[in-house]
Amino acid sequence: MDITEFVERSIGCWRSQRSAHHLAFSHFEAVESIIDIVTVAPDDPEVIALCKDYDVDPQAAVSPFRMSWEGQSDWDDKEIKGTCVLVPLPDPLQPNRGKLLRDRGYAETIPSAGEYHITEDGTFVLVTSYERAAAEEKIWFVNPNVRCRVSLIKTSAGSGVVTASFSSEIRQDMKV
Amino acid sequence: MDITEFVERSIGCWRSQRSAHHLAFSHFEAVESIIDIVTVAPDDPEVIALCKDYDVDPQAAVSPFRMSWEGQSDWDDKEIKGTCVLVPLPDPLQPNRGKLLRDRGYAETIPSAGEYHITEDGTFVLVTSYERAAAEEKIWFVNPNVRCRVSLIKTSAGSGVVTASFSSEIRQDMKV
Repeated sequence: MDITEFVERSIGCWRSQRSAHHLAFSHFEAVESIIDIVTVAPDDPEVIALCKDYDVDPQAAVSPFRMSWEGQSDWDDKEIKGTCVLVPLPDPLQPNRGKLLRDRGYAETIPSAGEYHITEDGTFVLVTSYERAAAEEKIWFVNPNVRCRVSLIKTSAGSGVVTASFSSEIRQDMKV
Repeated sequence: MDITEFVERSIGCWRSQRSAHHLAFSHFEAVESIIDIVTVAPDDPEVIALCKDYDVDPQAAVSPFRMSWEGQSDWDDKEIKGTCVLVPLPDPLQPNRGKLLRDRGYAETIPSAGEYHITEDGTFVLVTSYERAAAEEKIWFVNPNVRCRVSLIKTSAGSGVVTASFSSEIRQDMKV
């Protein structure tokens, strides 16, 4: 599976159940949200601007998309809401690897550039390094209407895991 | 990674946080437990008996182990407790694949024989078919002291996912 197919399979509106495990104090957080993933034209001004920020030729962008989410956590009553544009830049020599630019992350509110690869069994793996932390995300499809996502927030130094979270995402208006 | 290394890395006492997503009705279940994994001798009577049940030569067993768990769910007040012996039977021609016999499952209280394989990036994948359901489990190590496990319970017919659950497991008395 290449990034084009992965993005195509992701397009749609998803109902998400997310559980976050805050490992140091064994806390469970439950989040319910709606995630909307739509295609964005490669020549969209936001795509061009993000490529410029990272000094990348916008021609290298493949299957850019926008992700928007809106939900509620049981941790506090604050509504969780956001949107970001994501721009995959496949490695010309290794089509299952590349960079993923994002104009705003979930863990941080600053732009990020992560390294992705897609494994033999179709799991999308994204590693993003921030100043004080690193995020590792795995996303895979169980079937066309169900996808799973595991996100780990690690200390930037390396191996310590701060938060492990799991989302099960079901395409809306579909039977699981 | 082969099954011997995977079992070696799993041996120990783990503190587990598990979240189960019951997808049809968006319910979150939280389970905290202690999981103990110990080696079992290949000539242990329980290993021999399990191999006999499945008409398998006990000589084919590699790295059998026992898993015991004890925990509490927020779903009801019933204590979750169990133990089982697991016997890997690697495929002689494909060392990263094989069968896994289990004398009692968690999803069912009957013995089971699942098919496992270990992916290139070290994820152990186990697929077990029951009479009325199928279970798919992925387990991987984030570091020697943290492992993740995603379990899906599907309808036996195939693609429907009933429950998706995620465990983050931390080696006890270790810093994450």
